[in-house]
Amino acid sequence: MGLGRQLIVELFGCDRKVLDSVSGLRKALREAAKASNSTILSDYFHKFSPQGVSGVIVIAESHLAVHTWPEYGYAAVDIFTCGKHTDPWGALEVIERALKPKRMTVMEVRRGLMVEEAVAKAEVI
Amino acid sequence: MGLGRQLIVELFGCDRKVLDSVSGLRKALREAAKASNSTILSDYFHKFSPQGVSGVIVIAESHLAVHTWPEYGYAAVDIFTCGKHTDPWGALEVIERALKPKRMTVMEVRRGLMVEEAVAKAEVI
Repeated sequence: MGLGRQLIVELFGCDRKVLDSVSGLRKALREAAKASNSTILSDYFHKFSPQGVSGVIVIAESHLAVHTWPEYGYAAVDIFTCGKHTDPWGALEVIERALKPKRMTVMEVRRGLMVEEAVAKAEVI
Repeated sequence: MGLGRQLIVELFGCDRKVLDSVSGLRKALREAAKASNSTILSDYFHKFSPQGVSGVIVIAESHLAVHTWPEYGYAAVDIFTCGKHTDPWGALEVIERALKPKRMTVMEVRRGLMVEEAVAKAEVI
């Protein structure tokens, strides 16, 4: 089933105050990482002028990233976790609660799916 | 056309020495960021035991990330750039030259595509 799973999340109509807050976003992403059962290695958040934040948390199981455009109420979130012990959807629940999007789309991508595995799986289906 | 573009890259059959080298990967990703015409804000690379590296570069235009499994010759790369002045494909060329994959797949995802924009575009098509 591959080495990892990545959620590519588009969040529209978010709470604009949270989108422009390094402390709010850092808190949300760190709690999200924990909720996915991941181990945090490092984080880095940057506040743009006049608005917007980029933040990345590197976890032992890959990474979480957020990039915000408060002027559009929009955030781009990536949640990439590897290993069977992690649940990226648990992280997304925390982020959704914090950013309060009115509209959200999620795409889940399997990463590191070896061709042999993919063929074997296709045969089963 | 949206706020950003993200390349989701699967690289198989890579040079295993490079996959296990923090200095090699950091050099490749920093050069890649520059090749995409992005501005580097921060980088963080972590070497796992016994093998594997995770690295993220936060750029003013979003981020680049790499996660490697030298035991499989595999790397997961994300190149997320925003703004009209950037070219994520330029970054990918640099990374491909450094990692030397035998097989590679790329998916390009438009991020921050507002629904109004999407509808307008669909009408044109």
